[in-house]
Amino acid sequence: MTAYDALMQFQRETEALGQIAGRLGWDQETMMPEGATPQRAEEHGAMANILHARRIDPRVGEWLAKAEPADDVAAANLRHIGRSFERTAKVPAAIAAELAKTTSLAHRIWAQSRADEDVASFLPILQKVVDLRKEEAAAVAGDADPYDALLDDYEPGATGASLGAMFDALRPRLVALRAAILDRPAPAQLSGSFDEAAQLKLSEKLALAFGYNTNHGRIDKAVHPFSSGSGLDVRITTRTNPTDPFNCFYSTIHEVGHAAYEQGIDPQHLLTPLGAGVSMGVHESQSRIYENQLGRSRAFTGWLYGQMRDAFGDFGIADEDAFYATVNRVSDGFIRTEADEVQYNLHVLLRFDLERALIAGDLAVNDLEAAWNDRFKADFGYAVDRPSNGVLQDVHWSEGLFGYFPTYTLGNVYAGCLHTALRDAVPGLDADLARGDTSAATGWLRENLQQFGGLRTPIDTITHATGTKPSEGPLLDYLEDKFSSIYGL
Amino acid sequence: MTAYDALMQFQRETEALGQIAGRLGWDQETMMPEGATPQRAEEHGAMANILHARRIDPRVGEWLAKAEPADDVAAANLRHIGRSFERTAKVPAAIAAELAKTTSLAHRIWAQSRADEDVASFLPILQKVVDLRKEEAAAVAGDADPYDALLDDYEPGATGASLGAMFDALRPRLVALRAAILDRPAPAQLSGSFDEAAQLKLSEKLALAFGYNTNHGRIDKAVHPFSSGSGLDVRITTRTNPTDPFNCFYSTIHEVGHAAYEQGIDPQHLLTPLGAGVSMGVHESQSRIYENQLGRSRAFTGWLYGQMRDAFGDFGIADEDAFYATVNRVSDGFIRTEADEVQYNLHVLLRFDLERALIAGDLAVNDLEAAWNDRFKADFGYAVDRPSNGVLQDVHWSEGLFGYFPTYTLGNVYAGCLHTALRDAVPGLDADLARGDTSAATGWLRENLQQFGGLRTPIDTITHATGTKPSEGPLLDYLEDKFSSIYGL
Repeated sequence: MTAYDALMQFQRETEALGQIAGRLGWDQETMMPEGATPQRAEEHGAMANILHARRIDPRVGEWLAKAEPADDVAAANLRHIGRSFERTAKVPAAIAAELAKTTSLAHRIWAQSRADEDVASFLPILQKVVDLRKEEAAAVAGDADPYDALLDDYEPGATGASLGAMFDALRPRLVALRAAILDRPAPAQLSGSFDEAAQLKLSEKLALAFGYNTNHGRIDKAVHPFSSGSGLDVRITTRTNPTDPFNCFYSTIHEVGHAAYEQGIDPQHLLTPLGAGVSMGVHESQSRIYENQLGRSRAFTGWLYGQMRDAFGDFGIADEDAFYATVNRVSDGFIRTEADEVQYNLHVLLRFDLERALIAGDLAVNDLEAAWNDRFKADFGYAVDRPSNGVLQDVHWSEGLFGYFPTYTLGNVYAGCLHTALRDAVPGLDADLARGDTSAATGWLRENLQQFGGLRTPIDTITHATGTKPSEGPLLDYLEDKFSSIYGL
Repeated sequence: MTAYDALMQFQRETEALGQIAGRLGWDQETMMPEGATPQRAEEHGAMANILHARRIDPRVGEWLAKAEPADDVAAANLRHIGRSFERTAKVPAAIAAELAKTTSLAHRIWAQSRADEDVASFLPILQKVVDLRKEEAAAVAGDADPYDALLDDYEPGATGASLGAMFDALRPRLVALRAAILDRPAPAQLSGSFDEAAQLKLSEKLALAFGYNTNHGRIDKAVHPFSSGSGLDVRITTRTNPTDPFNCFYSTIHEVGHAAYEQGIDPQHLLTPLGAGVSMGVHESQSRIYENQLGRSRAFTGWLYGQMRDAFGDFGIADEDAFYATVNRVSDGFIRTEADEVQYNLHVLLRFDLERALIAGDLAVNDLEAAWNDRFKADFGYAVDRPSNGVLQDVHWSEGLFGYFPTYTLGNVYAGCLHTALRDAVPGLDADLARGDTSAATGWLRENLQQFGGLRTPIDTITHATGTKPSEGPLLDYLEDKFSSIYGL
């Protein structure tokens, strides 16, 4: 057996174990009885130890040193395995263990602080998390920018500087667009109650309409919807709210975007490093283009309007145009996860700038709340009313996930680029979407992006699909066109 | 850290990984999308490799050599770990790997042979399975009885000779009882259709009535009901058949018996070798005493009759006495899993005698079908009509599970012993059961047996609970008394 084959055989088993660890997480959020929590924590810990030991197994280093790639696929596999091996090996076990313990504790403290609206009680442990992540980044990157070392975990190859430049170009046009929209009369909101069983039924129809394959997946309910798994078993979750069926429908379409990426990868990559989405940003580009550029388009919402009339009868929205405006309604709000297409990225940019400053040492943990509140006021025009609507609203920092937030907006930027290329490639797209037919769009995404999994770097993945280097321009143009038309700007 | 503590820390993680492997099996039978099958096979394989490597990890041998037990619990833990370590280490990796591959193939061939009613197509691979298990037994036991070495996997300490003596005493009295019953007029059968949602609702009520704790478990549907997991997460499954609600109800009570054993173990044993049922036979004693001695008693069926009238209205059975006879109806049938209390053990005894002869080399695989059919005719009085009703009906032998079948009847024997002791200890039991209150009975079982998990050997577990060495007498007396009363013998 060649060194490459031996490495890949070992890696295949590691990938299978990784899938099991993911499935445990799915089970915990959907099926697990509540009283099992302490035991499940030990089960997760045992799997994490197994996976960590395999990632730094000395044989991996030996195989990597000897392996010679026969083709592009082999080269990409070696790149992924080598990257993970080197990075994991650089972090001292004591830091990794301390981080696991500290973030677990920080998560619990954060939940309590948020419930108590008490920022001060969260700051000491947050300081510890920040310090540990900086230590980890220094171990990985030496004297290079520590934020880049953290970002690299979620978006290989991205840098704080490159994202910063892109986001700085986004911010003023988004702030201006938001202000212009909110100067105009607001479209109607949905009112009344929508049967939850009927929501789930239509939600499943939407999942199937977007090409979700239930022979390799299933749909369940969860408090916070997510997609889980790669290869032959990619499950999604959704939720219902009796007064807000859009939450159910667009959560489903969003998760189908993630799942379709995983389900669309060439089966030759099953249980290899190429057999999963290549980065958080590229993953989010799929969930966002499904949810927004396709799912919230005028054409598709026209079809959805008919589906909702069939499911719920007359629900008080007069026609397709009014429904389109209702689906895309822009309104004030503190919460990132509830934000519309226009404001969502402003929430992310705020977090990106603050966490970059925290890691760089330009912002003290003790000044974080004030910085948050100032920035929020500057971009949104009104003040944060309480910590759970501000600096304590998201779980990420308590878990040490610095570098994660920007991938959300990067995904939107990538979705903008892909959407432009898709429109060029599929001129009859709107006629399809108006019939609820997404097959040309999802087929194009599968053909040009999804099938390749981790074959190329994230940026090369987008560049290969669109023919040009990604930039923020297409997303901004799309948002300005769409919302100018809806709001008569 | 002492050698004992180091060993137990390692073992705790192994136990957690074992729970994960079990949960994967649960998922496969209840939740997994069909198309995930090939990936799940790799996931199972990866977990099996991890668990095997831990069982024979040389450090375990070193810790075992140095560890000094401080008390009974520690001594029992060392006994369990040492037994597994020595046994696993004795079996050459090549035999273990060949067995895994062969039984996986044999399982598929068996399913096809059974569908085709073609015994001959199954025999070559069965021969290979028998040969491999004999090789394994020889590696474990040397010149000792190879069947004992196999049996020890399911029922530590049991021997073919001791079970054979017990079963030889059972057989003539069961054959005679069966014949006497079938000479009498049969009680009424259920007829008509029973709403499946209502079955599931009453089934859950029964589970709760028998003390199943849904904070540490859940109930789902599965083709073949089973119980899964230990410690804080013990799940059960059931099934429905519109014309046979007893199938649903007694499957549920049976699985609750298994689950209650796991849920009843002292929490100090969580994720240790003592934290699970001690053997298949003792496990089956719990499922059987819940299902039969309690669940099919005159007192409890009186309560169940009222519950069924509430759920389904008048279903054509006149009163509690008639219902008791219907629940306990004895009738001809080829299938072990569908057999009543009287005939069930005859099905098991047949398999035990044949598999013991196979492993001893006293019966050739090619003569197995004829031997099955002869024995069936002798005990049941009529001929097997086709292989799926005879030698091909059970999955066990295809999977190499020689030594498993006798634990079913051993469980019934143990249930008989426990039932006698329970009746002595709880004189008002029937009055409780007539109200659907099992708490005194399940409390006694928990107190005297379940809480101890793997602390004692299987036989000592029963002896501790009942005060006397287990024997077949109480089961026979119970069956003869009960069915004489129902059938007026």
